[in-house]
Amino acid sequence: MDFFEAVEKRHSYRGPFKNVTVSGKDIVRIVESGLKAPSGKNGQTTTFVIVDEPGLVKKIGQMHPVNKAMQQAKVFIACVVDKNPESVYEGCSFQIEDCSAAVQNMLLSITVLGYASVWIDGWLRVEGRAQVIDKLLGIPEEKTIRVLLPIGVPAEDVCPKEKKPFEQRAWFNKFGVL
Amino acid sequence: MDFFEAVEKRHSYRGPFKNVTVSGKDIVRIVESGLKAPSGKNGQTTTFVIVDEPGLVKKIGQMHPVNKAMQQAKVFIACVVDKNPESVYEGCSFQIEDCSAAVQNMLLSITVLGYASVWIDGWLRVEGRAQVIDKLLGIPEEKTIRVLLPIGVPAEDVCPKEKKPFEQRAWFNKFGVL
Repeated sequence: MDFFEAVEKRHSYRGPFKNVTVSGKDIVRIVESGLKAPSGKNGQTTTFVIVDEPGLVKKIGQMHPVNKAMQQAKVFIACVVDKNPESVYEGCSFQIEDCSAAVQNMLLSITVLGYASVWIDGWLRVEGRAQVIDKLLGIPEEKTIRVLLPIGVPAEDVCPKEKKPFEQRAWFNKFGVL
Repeated sequence: MDFFEAVEKRHSYRGPFKNVTVSGKDIVRIVESGLKAPSGKNGQTTTFVIVDEPGLVKKIGQMHPVNKAMQQAKVFIACVVDKNPESVYEGCSFQIEDCSAAVQNMLLSITVLGYASVWIDGWLRVEGRAQVIDKLLGIPEEKTIRVLLPIGVPAEDVCPKEKKPFEQRAWFNKFGVL
């Protein structure tokens, strides 16, 4: 698929998935696009756990409250970061940026390959949910899941959410001046 | 360009640029791909200032120390965020994630359209550099530049940096277990 078509088509999908498996080859291709994302000082700080073992998938899908996509996902990709990231430049860590760039590459890949997903982030940080999944996946004590992507073949058509027009978010040379 | 080719070809470019302008149409297309990136609760928290006025471009390019790409960029895209972001979900702000997803879309766009760039982030946070550029671009007091992208037509061939292989960063169902 053309790059700009992928950007146009990508959207957050929280609906039901078809009862169709996600091919192992596709999942590897999706994660590989995450591996190729940029990272501060090429630190490659994000690691990934692909969850496709049915028992584990079920356990995550049965956590409450979750949307339909989480309940019916065939596969999850868990993105793992350090709880206390190292400074890589002048006291700064870039691991949230690194992780987000990888997630964005993967969301576009997911779209291109005919699947759908949604960026699960804040949900993990409430009521110890990340810790529950950390335990299920054997995440080391010093690390935690930052983002979770439920993946499947969408059963419903959903339009990308409306975005503000260019003039409301971008300007030339002076902020806010058309 | 095919999406996967764009992911493969994208790399951080710090070298010299050819003396070729970046078309206004292309710049708008690049920023539009940033506008279409996902954001937490669809908050669309990142705004953009495109710097193409030669006097301003020169002022940024003459800051010290900067790489060749910063010195010779024809255009910059400045990504602007809140200094004190609002909580959008259970006490969390997602503006760094929002900004990073937009940057990643734009870096891929830049690659597809035959330009090159590099994600300038930590550099801005040292010695008040973001504040200097904030002032040049009339960024409101409560906001600041988080990321700067110098853009031009690359004068040198640079290979994408080597990335760790899949087995060192991704596993199935259990962290670190092949």
